[in-house]
Amino acid sequence: MDPPRFVIGASEAASLAKEAGLSLTDLLPTLVAAAKALARTPISRYHVGAVGLGSSGRIFFGVNLEFRGLPLHQSVHAEQFLATNLALHREPRLLAFAVSSAPCGHCRQFLQEIRDASEIQVRIFPVDDPDQEPDPAFGPLSRLLPQWFGPSDLLEKEVPLLLEPHHNGLTLLTRNPDHESSCNGFCDGPDADELAAAALEAANASHAPYSKSPSGVAIVDRDGKVYKGSYAESAAYNPSLGPVQTALVAYIAGGGGGYERIVAGVLVEKEGALVTQEHTARLLMGQVSPKCEFRVVHCSSG
Amino acid sequence: MDPPRFVIGASEAASLAKEAGLSLTDLLPTLVAAAKALARTPISRYHVGAVGLGSSGRIFFGVNLEFRGLPLHQSVHAEQFLATNLALHREPRLLAFAVSSAPCGHCRQFLQEIRDASEIQVRIFPVDDPDQEPDPAFGPLSRLLPQWFGPSDLLEKEVPLLLEPHHNGLTLLTRNPDHESSCNGFCDGPDADELAAAALEAANASHAPYSKSPSGVAIVDRDGKVYKGSYAESAAYNPSLGPVQTALVAYIAGGGGGYERIVAGVLVEKEGALVTQEHTARLLMGQVSPKCEFRVVHCSSG
Ligand SMILES: [Zn+2]
Ligand SMILES: [Zn+2]
Repeated sequence: MDPPRFVIGASEAASLAKEAGLSLTDLLPTLVAAAKALARTPISRYHVGAVGLGSSGRIFFGVNLEFRGLPLHQSVHAEQFLATNLALHREPRLLAFAVSSAPCGHCRQFLQEIRDASEIQVRIFPVDDPDQEPDPAFGPLSRLLPQWFGPSDLLEKEVPLLLEPHHNGLTLLTRNPDHESSCNGFCDGPDADELAAAALEAANASHAPYSKSPSGVAIVDRDGKVYKGSYAESAAYNPSLGPVQTALVAYIAGGGGGYERIVAGVLVEKEGALVTQEHTARLLMGQVSPKCEFRVVHCSSG
Repeated sequence: MDPPRFVIGASEAASLAKEAGLSLTDLLPTLVAAAKALARTPISRYHVGAVGLGSSGRIFFGVNLEFRGLPLHQSVHAEQFLATNLALHREPRLLAFAVSSAPCGHCRQFLQEIRDASEIQVRIFPVDDPDQEPDPAFGPLSRLLPQWFGPSDLLEKEVPLLLEPHHNGLTLLTRNPDHESSCNGFCDGPDADELAAAALEAANASHAPYSKSPSGVAIVDRDGKVYKGSYAESAAYNPSLGPVQTALVAYIAGGGGGYERIVAGVLVEKEGALVTQEHTARLLMGQVSPKCEFRVVHCSSG
């Protein structure tokens, strides 16, 4: 069986819309049920699916992820997965999305990190839930979060936002002490230095303009395939998405399967930064893949 | 110097309003600057103050708290502090609040845990910030979070919400192994069993209807004074407020001073619960008061 797909290419999306006699935007609600089925919710069993249209004409899926044995702030919401999925595929703009439940305040806030967020078109489109009323049409995100607090309250206009290119200028400070004996269960994949280099790339793409504490994670699965996640900060602090979370989004969206297939990971962050991911990242990795070997490599912005 | 005050009694509030020729509600914006000054924000230096009116006629302050060296999801927002302050003082309803910045989506969501949240009257009242426009008047919270997701999407109507009495029926499973030698730096205060009993009380008052994983923390300062915090869950998961956070709110609102004065703490939670606070609680306590002795005692709902 092919792994589930989280991105539909522009030409396929156009064909699907044509077949259905719908605009690309109106195609989104028809895909919500398919997205919702891909959620991983061991705590709530409450699946949420979000389906978004990017400015390239591609369609992106987002689902919610929950992790047992940890506080709930480690969860990833479908709208956060969706935004991360766009970032992974270097999609510069989110035009519209349909979602199976009313977006929570946390997500309405997180989405403010996208340029011109207030104009993103949203339609709540419940699937298999007779208690919820579907929106009759798409409407702007500003309708769901009027008088928003966001990046413009804290940043100069030219600072890049979530889907815009970031170049944080970080370099690795410490070499991996296990460099010489780096065959740790992923012999066919990248060696430890290569994994650290991938995590550094992710840290360099991290959106952390508020704390100036960027970070990135690279994980590798049994097949030697590498997935990268960049820390994504929110102007409102708490809705920020950690780098293990975004790496897991990359893993799932990339067809990665069960978490236990993740055999190693590296976190790159600045030592002594105001915001430090290390211990919390270890907790999450240890929970989803207890045998995963997880290392921290420090970087500098000098 | 007297410690700063976070609650104004009903008769004093009434006198202040009378002196100012204002209603109790219209007195709230006049106190926002005083609240804002009490924020503890080592990362952002961005102070937020919230001042709320309870149904008893008392006035409550809330401020934002940030913690260095951890992910930003450990932060406490002023509106969360305010709601916790009401819960601490068994105030059954929040009628109105004024706040120095536009509430973020995370807070608009967290406040849904209060019964009839949509009717809470809110006024954004910036202090010393010429870039922000004050609201001309109070308006309902529903204006800031239309089409909200909240407790009514997941719970039966009779399940108690955040400011309503909770009796989780928990009992301690494990006795503290250090019981015999419990004089650990807080000889003049409660012994280890007493601290665990206080944490159990906090866990029994915890609002955790979604994960059914209640928890509570009790901390004690150098003077032997005990402060309790109950885990407070959000229907949207991520905005949930951990038990160390609410204990720190109790500490600050109770005049506790610097965090380094906290010498010991106990967390009570269920072993193997879907949501587990232990490791994250240790991280936060270790960060704010490195010498604090922190223990975990498990409980059962049997
Ligand atoms: Zn959400
Ligand atoms: Zn907030």
